[in-house]
Amino acid sequence: MIQKVVILSTGDELTSGRVIDTNSAEIAERLFAIGIEVPAILKVGDNKDQLLWALRQAQGLGDSVIGTGGLGPTSDDLTTEVVAEFLGCKLRQNDHVARELQQRFKERGISWSANTLKQALLPEGSTIISNPVGTAPGFRVPISPDKTLLWLSGVPQEMLAMLDQTVLPWIERQRGEAVQVFSCTFKIHGVTEGKLDEMLRPVHLGNDVRLSFRAHYPDLSLRLTVRTHRPDGSLLFETIQNQISALLGKHIYAEGDTSLEEVIGRLLMEKQQTLALAESCTGGYISHRVTRIAGSSAYYYGGAVTYSNEAKIQFLGVRPETLKEHGAVSRETALEMSAGIKQRTGADIGLSVTGVAGPTGGSAAKPVGTVWVSIAQAGRHEAKLFRFVGDREHVILGTSQVALNWLRTCLLR
Amino acid sequence: MIQKVVILSTGDELTSGRVIDTNSAEIAERLFAIGIEVPAILKVGDNKDQLLWALRQAQGLGDSVIGTGGLGPTSDDLTTEVVAEFLGCKLRQNDHVARELQQRFKERGISWSANTLKQALLPEGSTIISNPVGTAPGFRVPISPDKTLLWLSGVPQEMLAMLDQTVLPWIERQRGEAVQVFSCTFKIHGVTEGKLDEMLRPVHLGNDVRLSFRAHYPDLSLRLTVRTHRPDGSLLFETIQNQISALLGKHIYAEGDTSLEEVIGRLLMEKQQTLALAESCTGGYISHRVTRIAGSSAYYYGGAVTYSNEAKIQFLGVRPETLKEHGAVSRETALEMSAGIKQRTGADIGLSVTGVAGPTGGSAAKPVGTVWVSIAQAGRHEAKLFRFVGDREHVILGTSQVALNWLRTCLLR
Repeated sequence: MIQKVVILSTGDELTSGRVIDTNSAEIAERLFAIGIEVPAILKVGDNKDQLLWALRQAQGLGDSVIGTGGLGPTSDDLTTEVVAEFLGCKLRQNDHVARELQQRFKERGISWSANTLKQALLPEGSTIISNPVGTAPGFRVPISPDKTLLWLSGVPQEMLAMLDQTVLPWIERQRGEAVQVFSCTFKIHGVTEGKLDEMLRPVHLGNDVRLSFRAHYPDLSLRLTVRTHRPDGSLLFETIQNQISALLGKHIYAEGDTSLEEVIGRLLMEKQQTLALAESCTGGYISHRVTRIAGSSAYYYGGAVTYSNEAKIQFLGVRPETLKEHGAVSRETALEMSAGIKQRTGADIGLSVTGVAGPTGGSAAKPVGTVWVSIAQAGRHEAKLFRFVGDREHVILGTSQVALNWLRTCLLR
Repeated sequence: MIQKVVILSTGDELTSGRVIDTNSAEIAERLFAIGIEVPAILKVGDNKDQLLWALRQAQGLGDSVIGTGGLGPTSDDLTTEVVAEFLGCKLRQNDHVARELQQRFKERGISWSANTLKQALLPEGSTIISNPVGTAPGFRVPISPDKTLLWLSGVPQEMLAMLDQTVLPWIERQRGEAVQVFSCTFKIHGVTEGKLDEMLRPVHLGNDVRLSFRAHYPDLSLRLTVRTHRPDGSLLFETIQNQISALLGKHIYAEGDTSLEEVIGRLLMEKQQTLALAESCTGGYISHRVTRIAGSSAYYYGGAVTYSNEAKIQFLGVRPETLKEHGAVSRETALEMSAGIKQRTGADIGLSVTGVAGPTGGSAAKPVGTVWVSIAQAGRHEAKLFRFVGDREHVILGTSQVALNWLRTCLLR
């Protein structure tokens, strides 16, 4: 019965950081989806002692082990050799694999080199995991009476084909009684991670229920996972899901893996409203977020990046006296910017931002991170002040988030 | 003396495959560059037993351990607690950190929650690793008479800042006998990775010399690392560096870790030229890239994101007949856009882009990925056609890169 699988990625390119290992995440994600736990992911280089160590550890931690890499024909491909040593068995040529290799090389007109046949040498007792994409097959071999080692190519597309076609179906057959897995994601705005945790205290987290946070500034998301043998698992999941919705209320801007700009796109379509932007300190970043969404031309008119005072005057009709009296970063300028872009474009909503992104340009009265956001729409013409503490990128990203979220709440009314 | 460092990444998002761990590769790459070996990379979830297991293993394998993740204020952030248990010591509030947290929250006007102070609780005997980007600091603590554990935030940009500013300099001081390490990065434009590999064939790579590519679309960089005991290491390094410069020539747009927008900013300052942008399919992304650079207001006037035909007419003076006869995605429209933004802003250079970002909007004559870029400056008014194959994001990112690179070559003349 398989419930826990350890993932083992091998290759010098991983331990030297030359390549980012995506294989282990792909495997972990698929295992998670079928209710298999991954207690650990291990990565070692192309080195016999490290690989032996990793095999011993993986065997100790998991019911089974999925490994990748080191199956090729060259001298740094050590996997089969080391696995045989680990199991105390011999390597044996698999004639079926040898014939297939010869066939493939012939078809492609590649010259045969002596070490090619190395790929047909597998630990005794192995079953082949065929590789529909490349040359080196993988193998599955028992490593103790109730544990199995499954080894796949390290080339991502080969690995995925072997995983999906052979390994996952095999694991699903070995998996014990059915663990049910339910999960959902909430996208959050307007609270810190710490505050969120506090707000969620009333949620009863048993062994079956897990909440995980992920902060990727300016984005914050919360994932609920219920993994259970209980027959009423789906009811339990829904109950907690509803409880979280009620506790966080307006701080949830989406359920599922939806971005703020997607939510805004849907709302603008629904309400048949058009948008135009006037950006100063964000320099076009809000416009970029809005237009990242396919189909945004249906509701987005365009905008002006008015990085200089002259641009604010020329493109938006901000009055020179306003700039002179109150400065570019002021409630007055923000209001004239949003009114100007709305009026000049004829869009239903004009959104403006002006602020000090830093690192220079701040003053005692208007330190770096001071940002005014303004929205002009029928029956509303307001400006709000925000303050950010952080570097230039932080101010730009944070401003785009508060501006879009304010727009969202305006569209909801 | 530190020669081997084990990397430990933690978080449920890693073992469930929801997030691809880039931290461990970034750390490994930098350690490799200063001659430190990484015998293994371990990843475990937010789980006490798994984390204790990983700490024991890491301690056994390495001279030191670098860990990431689990430093936040929420209940699933277990790091400090588990490390204290591992070391058999207590957690103690670091008053300096506590004050800093309070200060930061006050500055930002964020309401203080009781668990925020959890981030100031560190294992006894710890030295703080300050976090210049976020709130939770890291820590460094001895785990045996000659081994040290260094723990960093799991948020990539915080982790990198802590690594580069504090951890790597510390490790370099602890590193044993002098392996000399020389490395440099070339930023590349206009060739594929495969072609680059071919162009670099003449470079003789011995055991001491390594070339690594890192593609992060639309960016491509090449890193040369020479790690050697040879007394003439620096000569060897310079020889290869010059050879690469000669082989790649104009494809190198910068040496060092410099972005294309930084190069352009320097060139505009040098030549005392100002820039204005008129973007259609890139929706503000080029403007965002230009304004990401601190001080860009010195040379960037601003721009228009003319996502609709009306915006092109209104903000740029594109003639309705041009749009009707040739379409928004055409040489003619691109030329009128660049001329219009230059003329209306008075900037020295007007740059425009118009294209089909997709997924819809393409036709047989102008498929998705068709992009016109135009530059207007004194004595030059040209447009160029580019074709991209890929999704919406790919077209937007790729367009920004070719447009900025063309601008760069214009500024060099």
